[in-house]
Amino acid sequence: MLIGKVVGYVVSTRKCDNLVGNKFMIVEPIPSLKIDNRIVAVDKVGAGIGELVLVAQGSAARIGCGNPQAPIDAAIVGIIDEGQNLE
Amino acid sequence: MLIGKVVGYVVSTRKCDNLVGNKFMIVEPIPSLKIDNRIVAVDKVGAGIGELVLVAQGSAARIGCGNPQAPIDAAIVGIIDEGQNLE
Amino acid sequence: MLIGKVVGYVVSTRKCDNLVGNKFMIVEPIPSLKIDNRIVAVDKVGAGIGELVLVAQGSAARIGCGNPQAPIDAAIVGIIDEGQNLE
Amino acid sequence: MLIGKVVGYVVSTRKCDNLVGNKFMIVEPIPSLKIDNRIVAVDKVGAGIGELVLVAQGSAARIGCGNPQAPIDAAIVGIIDEGQNLE
Amino acid sequence: MLIGKVVGYVVSTRKCDNLVGNKFMIVEPIPSLKIDNRIVAVDKVGAGIGELVLVAQGSAARIGCGNPQAPIDAAIVGIIDEGQNLE
Repeated sequence: MLIGKVVGYVVSTRKCDNLVGNKFMIVEPIPSLKIDNRIVAVDKVGAGIGELVLVAQGSAARIGCGNPQAPIDAAIVGIIDEGQNLE
Repeated sequence: MLIGKVVGYVVSTRKCDNLVGNKFMIVEPIPSLKIDNRIVAVDKVGAGIGELVLVAQGSAARIGCGNPQAPIDAAIVGIIDEGQNLE
Repeated sequence: MLIGKVVGYVVSTRKCDNLVGNKFMIVEPIPSLKIDNRIVAVDKVGAGIGELVLVAQGSAARIGCGNPQAPIDAAIVGIIDEGQNLE
Repeated sequence: MLIGKVVGYVVSTRKCDNLVGNKFMIVEPIPSLKIDNRIVAVDKVGAGIGELVLVAQGSAARIGCGNPQAPIDAAIVGIIDEGQNLE
Repeated sequence: MLIGKVVGYVVSTRKCDNLVGNKFMIVEPIPSLKIDNRIVAVDKVGAGIGELVLVAQGSAARIGCGNPQAPIDAAIVGIIDEGQNLE
């Protein structure tokens, strides 16, 4: 899993049926994780721009989020309150 | 998931049976995602060359797209209309 | 799988229901593996900060750890006692 | 998915039972994909050395190829005839 | 899949129950694959230090190796006898 900041979003009107109703956020991993690339993740917890979030990737983002049949490979599954060694 | 531009396609006549009928597009992630490599994705939404698209990878591309038995690991699942912080 | 040192943790109060009760640790792979990025993994064995651990990623972290329905993609599944060529 | 050239093969006599009968080819992604590493993929379409092929990775290589119980994570699933923007 | 040399091992006494009985080997991919990082893989074929092996990753390492419920994401599934273009 990764920790990142929500830095943007995208809107898609023409999309697969079982994606309808999802919000797609752009997440930038925190620098201390040393993950260079940003990812697009479906929001499951009501995260806003600028918030620090926990992201699950792979089949966990479908099956672990109640959308086993949706073409989703990354999901925001928590809002970070605090931590040790995030910097 | 990732956002990218459709930059090309490939044609394969001799292929696994459950790939028949699929279009294989080459997608280049947008620069702001900092993903260096291009990927080949099956088109599920009628995307054309030059369009900005949303791509799902892994088992999401099979199970989430109604092709659970096909050897597909990436699929174009939406056309991007707009966004914030795509650049 | 990877071997890493537990270097921190994060706390998330607002999170998906089936994540409740899990501890999220930050793990830094040992240098000899030449994996640059840190990952966030759910602790399944009572690991503490500073300990050397074994991490499983992907669906193994859900299905292999008795949480098939949780949005988890990495888990600490063992504490390392000793090894050969870890340096 | 990725497009690559078959550049070699490996032979393994002592292997898991459900790998018996498979051919393991070494595939080098085409330069325009900017994927640096080569991968080893099971051949499902009768590809030869030097041919340009389509490779599926992950669970798609098992489930999508009729070998759901085999320890295979990459498979050659098509021979490339032509394309646009492969260079 | 990847080809690598077994260069070490790790021992973990305190681990998830369904990992009991497994040997964890450290595998370094052969240079020609251009994969920089080493991985830890469960040995399914009796591989020894210094041997050249075939490794399967992801769900293939669990389901394809008769351990569908174990938190394993990489397994040694064959010993390499010979090959073309391994260098």
